[in-house]
Amino acid sequence: MPTCTPERTQVGIVGAGPAGLMLSHLLGRAGIESIVIDLRSRDEIEHTHRAGILEQGSVDLLVDRGVSDRVHRDGYRHNGIELAFGGSGHRIDFQGLAGASTQLYPQTDVFIDLANARERDGGDVRFAVTDVSVDGLTSDSPTIRFTDSNGAAHEIRADFLVGADGSRSLCRHQVPEAECTQYFREYPFAWFGILTEAPPSAPELIYNHSPYGFALISQRTSKLQRMYFQCDPGENVDDWSDDRIWDQLQTRLGANGYTLKEGPITSKTVLPFRSFVQEPMHHGRMALAGDAAHTVPPTGAKGLNLALADVRVLAEELERAVRSHDAAPLATYTQRAVARVWKSQHFSYWMTTMLHTLPDASPFDTRRQEGELASVTGSVAGSTYLAEAYTGWPGSK
Amino acid sequence: MPTCTPERTQVGIVGAGPAGLMLSHLLGRAGIESIVIDLRSRDEIEHTHRAGILEQGSVDLLVDRGVSDRVHRDGYRHNGIELAFGGSGHRIDFQGLAGASTQLYPQTDVFIDLANARERDGGDVRFAVTDVSVDGLTSDSPTIRFTDSNGAAHEIRADFLVGADGSRSLCRHQVPEAECTQYFREYPFAWFGILTEAPPSAPELIYNHSPYGFALISQRTSKLQRMYFQCDPGENVDDWSDDRIWDQLQTRLGANGYTLKEGPITSKTVLPFRSFVQEPMHHGRMALAGDAAHTVPPTGAKGLNLALADVRVLAEELERAVRSHDAAPLATYTQRAVARVWKSQHFSYWMTTMLHTLPDASPFDTRRQEGELASVTGSVAGSTYLAEAYTGWPGSK
Repeated sequence: MPTCTPERTQVGIVGAGPAGLMLSHLLGRAGIESIVIDLRSRDEIEHTHRAGILEQGSVDLLVDRGVSDRVHRDGYRHNGIELAFGGSGHRIDFQGLAGASTQLYPQTDVFIDLANARERDGGDVRFAVTDVSVDGLTSDSPTIRFTDSNGAAHEIRADFLVGADGSRSLCRHQVPEAECTQYFREYPFAWFGILTEAPPSAPELIYNHSPYGFALISQRTSKLQRMYFQCDPGENVDDWSDDRIWDQLQTRLGANGYTLKEGPITSKTVLPFRSFVQEPMHHGRMALAGDAAHTVPPTGAKGLNLALADVRVLAEELERAVRSHDAAPLATYTQRAVARVWKSQHFSYWMTTMLHTLPDASPFDTRRQEGELASVTGSVAGSTYLAEAYTGWPGSK
Repeated sequence: MPTCTPERTQVGIVGAGPAGLMLSHLLGRAGIESIVIDLRSRDEIEHTHRAGILEQGSVDLLVDRGVSDRVHRDGYRHNGIELAFGGSGHRIDFQGLAGASTQLYPQTDVFIDLANARERDGGDVRFAVTDVSVDGLTSDSPTIRFTDSNGAAHEIRADFLVGADGSRSLCRHQVPEAECTQYFREYPFAWFGILTEAPPSAPELIYNHSPYGFALISQRTSKLQRMYFQCDPGENVDDWSDDRIWDQLQTRLGANGYTLKEGPITSKTVLPFRSFVQEPMHHGRMALAGDAAHTVPPTGAKGLNLALADVRVLAEELERAVRSHDAAPLATYTQRAVARVWKSQHFSYWMTTMLHTLPDASPFDTRRQEGELASVTGSVAGSTYLAEAYTGWPGSK
């Protein structure tokens, strides 16, 4: 490997997903320099299909902080969801209850907007790097080393580092075990996710509880839909023909009176369910953000939103840290971010356990679950409690 | 056993607890005759210590239907509860949030008021009977046989029977297994309950979540208090000195900044936790009400209130059944009562799992639980959802 002259920046960011790029964007607006690297190519990230529901605060962050207003033009505003159980749908009216909405806008579009904004604003983002390592986290000058896409070796010395490198985070693994606590929860099921070339079956998301298992009917565009159904974590997509998939989905939705519009299925994936949190969300002069620090099951649509909430706080604290040459604001970041992390973990757990069929559920548990769904949808307060969590606790900091 | 001439009544009721006596009282006001029997003596029932929190609707039932207004004079109105966790208390303001209150008024006083009212109104209640059996449930003339406290054999032929004979119900056991579904849930802990001769430690109930386990601080009078702490179901009261009990309680409450006023402990009991529902709540010409049909864990204070809610509906349907000589209204009773049963089961489960330390809880579960408590108490909607359930869904039917 050729030797190299170290570069300097104020904040070195590992991971150019939405969390890393949004952080770099926010820091740039505050006059703080950063360099972002990612193992993946820009094209590869653009073609990773992930979550698609943005909280009100996430939309505001993209628009108000000058990333792009495309989310308003190309996204679909959702003013509610349907909770389907016991033979029919029960709408949760987000606007009426919590005065907020969500926006259907895929994560890949959030990434494209952020990558374009970084390019537009002269941000320094390096895709498709290899051999990444981080070092000196507790020193005054933590370092990132990597090889760029042309094979040249680089060393970046920064005032602070950020690991925004996803659930298999390399940065997180540099924190000594004795310096952090890791919290895990496994779920005894997964989601079977499909993309289908069909018109929308419903104007809003349907969270469908049924004796045959949970299903989520989501949308993407007028011609492409995203749907999921609860399955065994060991399920193999090759065992599932289009017919078998539609049969499962129609049966589960049919239990509550819905019929789905079918089309060719263009993608089949099994999504594992896992909850994870690492605390604190910093170590020395490095902070963790987004999936690198925590993962949530997808039921509450919180993953991307929580990552954006992290970096909104982290950008403020990093600005303080850079200006004061002091790592103390990173502890404040942990303190401020972690409360929302656990509220989001709870909400995701709640939506998951309220709506899924648990493999070891007794008949009592099933009836109690229906009692809960009836309680929540039958109560303005219960529905509002759900709506405000789903839309991101509007008004919270 | 001497032979006897059968007596006739319109409704034969097994069980002279609050459910059976309230039903007999309500039927009496509607001009329907009933006879109530109980294996226990009046004195024995008066000295059974049970629940002490009445929902608004239970209070209204006692007062508005002419049982007694002593509940207002001798009870204590509670306009909220404290949820204690994470180092401090968080008040749930029932009046402010749900426009309702609860009343601290022990079950034994409810019984005394009802027994006095039945006596005053010429009700036919026979305590301390033996050899009870019921028969002919699907015939036109179901029968109760028993021996009275003087040793005389009796046979009562009724139009309809009601089993209000508690969780170990003899009546319930007469329903063939093939004709009903029984739902169970066990919990891996119990409550250690004490009565102590001490002044109140707090003006309202404290539901105390702590790393050392759950505790509930309740009251009875200005000189007598009721307290509970989560324990192993196999716990033996003889292993618990007063000092050891106070040490447990002070440690658990101390975690959230409270100090309890101590006094001599005059009663120590271990209360098992169990959820149970039998559906339907009728069979032929017999209906089940209260604990005979369902039991809830005590955390939500729902047991007695649910029993009174049952009989409020049952009295209406029995009146229809008696007047029409038709058992069909009993099916309507099941239908109307069962929705509240499952809402109450869910609420009791929710309060239980949110507040107790589960023996197999992972550190993730504990942090998530704290995230839930923070979400509920930090949200007006979440707090209202809890308040309206605790006070009995005011405005619901």
